[in-house]
Amino acid sequence: MMQDHAGSKLAAGIEDSLAERFGERLQVDPALAGLDELARIAGHRVHRDFLDRLVDPALLRLLCACALSAPSKSDLQQADILVVEDAHLRREIIALMPDMPWLEHAPVLLVFLANGARTPQLARQRGKPFPNNHFDLLFNATVDGTIALTTFMRAAAAVGLGCCPLSAIRDQADRVSALLGLPERVIPVAGLAAGWPAKAGHITPRLGLETTLHQDCYRQRDLDQQIDAYDRRRAAQQPYRRQRAVERWGQAEFYGWSEDKARQYAQPLREDFGAFLRAKGFCLD
Amino acid sequence: MMQDHAGSKLAAGIEDSLAERFGERLQVDPALAGLDELARIAGHRVHRDFLDRLVDPALLRLLCACALSAPSKSDLQQADILVVEDAHLRREIIALMPDMPWLEHAPVLLVFLANGARTPQLARQRGKPFPNNHFDLLFNATVDGTIALTTFMRAAAAVGLGCCPLSAIRDQADRVSALLGLPERVIPVAGLAAGWPAKAGHITPRLGLETTLHQDCYRQRDLDQQIDAYDRRRAAQQPYRRQRAVERWGQAEFYGWSEDKARQYAQPLREDFGAFLRAKGFCLD
Repeated sequence: MMQDHAGSKLAAGIEDSLAERFGERLQVDPALAGLDELARIAGHRVHRDFLDRLVDPALLRLLCACALSAPSKSDLQQADILVVEDAHLRREIIALMPDMPWLEHAPVLLVFLANGARTPQLARQRGKPFPNNHFDLLFNATVDGTIALTTFMRAAAAVGLGCCPLSAIRDQADRVSALLGLPERVIPVAGLAAGWPAKAGHITPRLGLETTLHQDCYRQRDLDQQIDAYDRRRAAQQPYRRQRAVERWGQAEFYGWSEDKARQYAQPLREDFGAFLRAKGFCLD
Repeated sequence: MMQDHAGSKLAAGIEDSLAERFGERLQVDPALAGLDELARIAGHRVHRDFLDRLVDPALLRLLCACALSAPSKSDLQQADILVVEDAHLRREIIALMPDMPWLEHAPVLLVFLANGARTPQLARQRGKPFPNNHFDLLFNATVDGTIALTTFMRAAAAVGLGCCPLSAIRDQADRVSALLGLPERVIPVAGLAAGWPAKAGHITPRLGLETTLHQDCYRQRDLDQQIDAYDRRRAAQQPYRRQRAVERWGQAEFYGWSEDKARQYAQPLREDFGAFLRAKGFCLD
């Protein structure tokens, strides 16, 4: 009976989270296994505000081992994790992401790497040719690094830690690469800040499932209307506190997600990332 | 007392899984929250063998909603999921991965998409310029698609489903793209087969943490020896049943992971993937 009650409560919580996220109430069977994990996944929230409490290095190592247990494309194992611990190095890395002053107070700073160096190294070691330095090498390594990143976030959430992934680590990828001593064909995919959360955080509403979940054939009819409906739903739940680049675009009467993202990407961002990848020895053909 | 006992059992199970995976015994605190989830992550195994039992479409939709609740780079929401249900379409897709006849019996076939079309569409819709059709657009969308893929696998494992990610969906990406009606700048990142597992599966040993987990500075000293040690550890636990491309490389006396991967990538694989991405409208500069 206790278990049934707990199951019903978890199921209702998942339904609430997904309703808040997608504007749609899905039915969740209270008898499903793993409901506590589904509740954490469905209730995902980003954390940038941490308690002044260290994360035990042994726990961090455990979570990294969990992350590196995740699947890897063709068993090639092209993901690495780098833990930034040295205080001086940490300050230098954080200084490269000046829009995120809160990083200073994040107990844990990690960098997830895409490692395109190891597979050619195996070829050298085993006396084999390596006719595969083309686009797929980078793509596979990037996917592996991202799988490790995502799995780390799930493991961290399970033990109660909060995380914020940092794509900004690629804003000055060449500097980060030099600071971390990354060799040829090893690149940062994303950083990650983690710690014990100081606040509950909040659920970010998402595009409706009619936009992002397709059956048999990709569907893009009515996309404008869907985005407009999402803008309205999201603004009702969680309006933006500030408008972006008002000096350029003025003050909008209604300011939704699409306006925010259109403004954000109306200026060139990270244009030199392809050049960085080439300089690191990847062939993008 | 019961809970303490359950915690100790889960903790010991995680220690066993990670020892089998990395050849190293990490200590796991039995009082940690979320041990059942860590146990599933640490004990990850691939499943290609499924019971003849359908996956309830409502459950599948729930898992997809969970996957799409995962973090997204800059809130851009560049991941989509496509469920392949139509029997004819499914046969056509599976026929493009001829090395995987077991796919025929997988109850669920999904394709995770990187969507680089929506952000420029927002710019058009909001009357803004979009000076960002460069490499980063593809990279960000790929990361988002992979985060959704990984989160789906975690949610699926929580309810007891088994999965196998399919990078082979990109072997003939242009054909897959045409079959699924993917528009410009929307590409498959990976397929995924899922179902109720017919077998327990097994843990695949991985490179030791001394190879893939770094502190402050990327470390590659002794890589040859580390790979050699891994080859021996893995062969002792889980030797390869067959050697690859014996007609070209002969029968090796000792056949380890590095030899298998070196042989696999000694022939050109998926060389045309960059050309496919360009044809789909991505700029790889």
